[in-house]
Amino acid sequence: MGHTIKDKKRILARVNRLKGQLEALATAVEADQDCYKIMQLLASCRGALHGLMGDIINNHIREHIVEAANKTDASKAGDELIEIMESFWK
Amino acid sequence: MGHTIKDKKRILARVNRLKGQLEALATAVEADQDCYKIMQLLASCRGALHGLMGDIINNHIREHIVEAANKTDASKAGDELIEIMESFWK
Amino acid sequence: MGHTIKDKKRILARVNRLKGQLEALATAVEADQDCYKIMQLLASCRGALHGLMGDIINNHIREHIVEAANKTDASKAGDELIEIMESFWK
Amino acid sequence: MGHTIKDKKRILARVNRLKGQLEALATAVEADQDCYKIMQLLASCRGALHGLMGDIINNHIREHIVEAANKTDASKAGDELIEIMESFWK
Repeated sequence: MGHTIKDKKRILARVNRLKGQLEALATAVEADQDCYKIMQLLASCRGALHGLMGDIINNHIREHIVEAANKTDASKAGDELIEIMESFWK
Repeated sequence: MGHTIKDKKRILARVNRLKGQLEALATAVEADQDCYKIMQLLASCRGALHGLMGDIINNHIREHIVEAANKTDASKAGDELIEIMESFWK
Repeated sequence: MGHTIKDKKRILARVNRLKGQLEALATAVEADQDCYKIMQLLASCRGALHGLMGDIINNHIREHIVEAANKTDASKAGDELIEIMESFWK
Repeated sequence: MGHTIKDKKRILARVNRLKGQLEALATAVEADQDCYKIMQLLASCRGALHGLMGDIINNHIREHIVEAANKTDASKAGDELIEIMESFWK
């Protein structure tokens, strides 16, 4: 069995909230709303996405590295986290 | 008339692509996919959101600051950009 | 004359404070301090660097785009800002 | 003994390089150089700081979480990493 996401319900609620924020953004762009308003909506989407990422990465650290069944699994999950984080330091 | 978004069609296409990526993310979470896969999908969403933000902010600089009708409008649009960007330096 | 930095004294004070933080970081690494302490010092350096960047970019928007002598100068300064910001959306 | 940084020499070389970049930045500000040049130097500093953070965080994951002597230590190091990363998702 692969590594799955704990607290699936909470994660899905966060993804859906973010989808709702993107729909509000699309509506605002469609309605030719003020560019400032659009940028504010985008900044909220970014905040929500970062919150979601923090949530999933914390879960990964706790469930798949710290609580790994053995050192091989912990090491693999550690490498996965490092690979994902490389994209944030660029 | 407020400051609207030029190239609305391109912007909406980007928003819709990002919504599609979030739907793929929700599906992967629902299907109990591997946490690593979930993190990769999230990293793509982040890349797409940053691309969208860059697009809208560039438009704001060009249309609403550089090409403002007068200095009062340019100054207001400059303050708006500064306010939005404050959230990125935290 | 090129575009220079207003409030040079304040900017230099910020750069020097950041240099001091980096020296504290080097000392902590030299002294084999706890990795957690090192990461906290790094997070402070990052906060200080972002504050400095926000300061300089705000100055650029106000002095070199909004208050540009003419549209050609504003446009050049706008392009410069866009180029710098591209590196943040990656 | 606390958790120390492996590859101390490489880390210190990175910190010193970053200090050199900050000195170049201070010199450029002192010399009233073009704002665009200043922003480019700042963007390089940010890149160098992110590289350094990636290096130290990777070391923390590998040495202090994956290779922890026991689950208590791994858990403590995991919580430290989560706390540090919270500051990046804001």
